[in-house]
Amino acid sequence: MSIFSMDLIREAAEQLSTQVIKTPLLNSPVLDSLVGANVYVKAECLQKTGAFKIRGALFKMISLTSQQRKSGVITYSAGNHGNAVSAASKVLGCSAVIVMPSDSPKIKQDNCRWWGSEIVLYNKQTQDREEVVAELIESRGLTFIPPFDDDFVMAGQGTVGVEISDQLQALGKVPDSLLLGCSGGGLAAGVITVINNNYPLANCYLTEAEGYEKWSLSLKSGKPEKLKTLSPTIIDGIAGPSVGVKPFEVLKTKNLNCTVATEQDVFVAMSAAYRHLKIVVEPGGAAALGVLIREKEKFHGQTVVVVCSGGNVDPDVFTKALNHGWISSAVNQ
Amino acid sequence: MSIFSMDLIREAAEQLSTQVIKTPLLNSPVLDSLVGANVYVKAECLQKTGAFKIRGALFKMISLTSQQRKSGVITYSAGNHGNAVSAASKVLGCSAVIVMPSDSPKIKQDNCRWWGSEIVLYNKQTQDREEVVAELIESRGLTFIPPFDDDFVMAGQGTVGVEISDQLQALGKVPDSLLLGCSGGGLAAGVITVINNNYPLANCYLTEAEGYEKWSLSLKSGKPEKLKTLSPTIIDGIAGPSVGVKPFEVLKTKNLNCTVATEQDVFVAMSAAYRHLKIVVEPGGAAALGVLIREKEKFHGQTVVVVCSGGNVDPDVFTKALNHGWISSAVNQ
Repeated sequence: MSIFSMDLIREAAEQLSTQVIKTPLLNSPVLDSLVGANVYVKAECLQKTGAFKIRGALFKMISLTSQQRKSGVITYSAGNHGNAVSAASKVLGCSAVIVMPSDSPKIKQDNCRWWGSEIVLYNKQTQDREEVVAELIESRGLTFIPPFDDDFVMAGQGTVGVEISDQLQALGKVPDSLLLGCSGGGLAAGVITVINNNYPLANCYLTEAEGYEKWSLSLKSGKPEKLKTLSPTIIDGIAGPSVGVKPFEVLKTKNLNCTVATEQDVFVAMSAAYRHLKIVVEPGGAAALGVLIREKEKFHGQTVVVVCSGGNVDPDVFTKALNHGWISSAVNQ
Repeated sequence: MSIFSMDLIREAAEQLSTQVIKTPLLNSPVLDSLVGANVYVKAECLQKTGAFKIRGALFKMISLTSQQRKSGVITYSAGNHGNAVSAASKVLGCSAVIVMPSDSPKIKQDNCRWWGSEIVLYNKQTQDREEVVAELIESRGLTFIPPFDDDFVMAGQGTVGVEISDQLQALGKVPDSLLLGCSGGGLAAGVITVINNNYPLANCYLTEAEGYEKWSLSLKSGKPEKLKTLSPTIIDGIAGPSVGVKPFEVLKTKNLNCTVATEQDVFVAMSAAYRHLKIVVEPGGAAALGVLIREKEKFHGQTVVVVCSGGNVDPDVFTKALNHGWISSAVNQ
């Protein structure tokens, strides 16, 4: 049975209010002019640990019994969720094991170690991460903190939507559209539930990484699909193989638009965020903004909210984005 | 006679409250650990036009007569002040002329043009900017908006200090030290007046660009000095030749510490801000943070506020900073 609801999201917002940063909703007149719309960027790259993931992880861990917290937690993660579980463990004073692919960005491994977590690396080509995690749970009595497929995690991520609503209200604005990157679906399920509740007329857009269009597939087939072949991509933050079962249950009832971001879209968005907003956004965090810029005619004259979900990106990728996306991010004069 | 005072700063804070962004006071546990202090970064790079300068320019222009605003305004600027006057002109519906060195970063020229200002370029080697401006004032009846040497401009910049105080109070923190970059002295005069008033025990540090130590010179000699030889530097935002007469009158009565940032200090700070705070900071805006990181033993265990004053930096300089400052900005583990 699902206990995910607006009430659970409100409960999360209350519990997390002193633990997470109320990130700013940024606007740039130059970016507005470039897009031809009134654009508000929810800068979750400025969140603790550089991504929204701390919200869901912390609310989930608050919901555990004190005995579970005492025994320690475990998760797998390409990085941002692992970092979030690590930081949440530090806040709550429990131990954490993070299982990561051996080729994940070094900045993300370093960040988890810094919080005091134990890192277990596995080989994506030869090992199954679920098996690696299952063995550690069995041998050490750890509790698994899911990256997205969980009511508490979805509710925690939904607090992004609560803040967006509060911030829009303070500005006297009503959104016509909301865009956010989507992979497992935890953020999307939480935020879209809030936006649908508060702004039933707003159009919601999921952005997937090119080659990872599992939500588009799942919403067509009517069941959560898992990708079989994964091509290399720099859009690592939203390049997981699976649609979450619980997020799918939530999102299948909504009227959603699926969009796809290419690497070039992401480079343009990262450059635009650098140039016009002065924030550092990682590829997965910039995908939705990339779609907005590419498809700007569709959003002409609207009030648009875009979630930029994280900022953990190695300098070589960031530099590549500035080199490839700079011209296209310039003002149309 | 000077009308600069805490009352004028409070008046500015009231007038500007709906016109400028209350920029966040950012903190990173990882940066805290790196520095060994509790560090709060006032992120003025997230301000409208990407720098604090809009505060002073807008408050000055609000103080003009409607006839003066109707006739138009003029200023000279390496960029951020010009951009600020341009944006303020747009807000107030008047015309603006910006006089700039022909070698100023293209992003800064583009930004001013975008707001609708007329750009007049001059050659730093062969022309005197004051003469260029004087001729235009004479021929067109324009009003000059000073970049720093003005009571209203200093009061406008002082609103950064008002916000810092409010934000620290909400956190229950009292600052031991404040660091900020300084060139003409408008920002320093405004902010240090507020911090001195609210936190009389806090130590205030001015950071100058290497080769541009005019405040150190002036505070020793007891009068505002002007540099005769100017070496090339990437720390362009705080590399003016002159100490403002009015800022000097304000700051000479304070107990100040002068510090100097090298290009390497600035690269390390820009990298640290990228890595740990996810913000884009320009060289002049990162100088004070660079000194804090280099001199961290001096600030051990303190609550420290650093103003990162702007984020307008061309990608080639930003990339160079990431290449040169990345390792040194890493976590000390």
